Amino acid sequence: MQFEVFTLLPEVFPSYLETSIIKRARERGLIDVRLHNIRDYTHDKHHTTDDAPYGGGGGMVMKPEPVFEAVESVLGTASPQSAPEADSNIPIILLTPQGRVFNQTIAKELSQYPRIALLCGRYEGVDERIREELVTDEISIGDFVLTGGELPALLLIDAVSRLLPDVLGDPTGAEDDSHAMGLLEYPHYTRPPEFRGSKVPDVLLSGDHAKIEKWRREQALERTFNKRPDMLEKADLTKEDLKLLKKLKEQQTDNEQTG
Amino acid sequence: MQFEVFTLLPEVFPSYLETSIIKRARERGLIDVRLHNIRDYTHDKHHTTDDAPYGGGGGMVMKPEPVFEAVESVLGTASPQSAPEADSNIPIILLTPQGRVFNQTIAKELSQYPRIALLCGRYEGVDERIREELVTDEISIGDFVLTGGELPALLLIDAVSRLLPDVLGDPTGAEDDSHAMGLLEYPHYTRPPEFRGSKVPDVLLSGDHAKIEKWRREQALERTFNKRPDMLEKADLTKEDLKLLKKLKEQQTDNEQTG
Repeated sequence: MQFEVFTLLPEVFPSYLETSIIKRARERGLIDVRLHNIRDYTHDKHHTTDDAPYGGGGGMVMKPEPVFEAVESVLGTASPQSAPEADSNIPIILLTPQGRVFNQTIAKELSQYPRIALLCGRYEGVDERIREELVTDEISIGDFVLTGGELPALLLIDAVSRLLPDVLGDPTGAEDDSHAMGLLEYPHYTRPPEFRGSKVPDVLLSGDHAKIEKWRREQALERTFNKRPDMLEKADLTKEDLKLLKKLKEQQTDNEQTG
Repeated sequence: MQFEVFTLLPEVFPSYLETSIIKRARERGLIDVRLHNIRDYTHDKHHTTDDAPYGGGGGMVMKPEPVFEAVESVLGTASPQSAPEADSNIPIILLTPQGRVFNQTIAKELSQYPRIALLCGRYEGVDERIREELVTDEISIGDFVLTGGELPALLLIDAVSRLLPDVLGDPTGAEDDSHAMGLLEYPHYTRPPEFRGSKVPDVLLSGDHAKIEKWRREQALERTFNKRPDMLEKADLTKEDLKLLKKLKEQQTDNEQTG
């Protein structure tokens, strides 16, 4: 899968791309991250990429011309929006707090494309015409204000890459994680069996795999119920799960009444 | 403000910390980001920081000993949780998909502390005893699966630093952004006034500041109404705002009926 990243800060990316799973995926040719400096597509002496906003107010706004030129020269003569006959299979995604909120479902959706373009706006603002006439999608990483779209782009690359075939060594790894199965993850324990008086639960040392599976599922459900009940609405639940949740709800009501 | 970052990948951080607003904030002594490699707190020949999970399953789990030792030796003799008489004013935050979901309100809350500790878990899992007995808070950046807590930590540092006094040159900058004012931002425009046939709205060229303010507020409301109606519940709305929202709702109903 090929990521085309358009940014004013390409120097932010390489150190993360050189670590861990992303590094191995790149070395094995499973992903390719190409960095394009928007500043290279300016033509004035000062390489201007932003300017004061019309109507006044603080902050600078990213100018349309260098962004259009950068995206169009990398992806082909014209953007899918301005020339629908061009390759419209490449999503051009603006990272912006105004976008749809990124989650594991969107990560899966994006992992189906052979090539995507990520446009890192300065979060103070990009000229509205970039949003209206160049990008095909807008994604937000969450409800908070950042300096720019660079960290969100790296996050998205990380989350999407993990879902590609062969990127994770362990083929079940991606499916077991929090959010991947629609629930928070069960507790993990490793050695030592006792640390400062706190012991690993007996069931995990029992060797009884069916019992371990059951315990983990119950723990995952209970955690999600307590910390993120909103996630249960979309989770894929079995009859057994629903029975346990009913019990948890009854306990909660009892506690509220006696408390 | 001092950030103490505990990670297995300290090399990920410097390039971002050397850019833009964060760089200037560091140079001016407004923030200080200290990186601590958890691997430096191991004592075996192979510097082991993770191990197989009890009970089986894929992935490796971060061992408790090096993490406890790293945090305790940097922050003082013992963690606030294990020794409540120690300095309990330093939040020890685990970045994990299981935590409360980060947003601008949490960023503000954290910006009040003079010093916070960020623990970057590998997202496959950390030993449960770290969660139960060392950390005082757990924060998730969103509902998706990442390789580790490093990018979330950088995101959090960026979002929190922007809220500190004097970090942003423009004192109103932080308050005008999306999410900071509880609404999505109004559209921005800069030069040229016409680009490929698409023009800057006349009102922004009018010089009439009251009219510009009004237009921007309406645009912000309309956008939030269309894209993120969930945000309106928490937003600080005036009587004028509520009137406009009522009109938008009526239009929507009309469209549904005629469509």
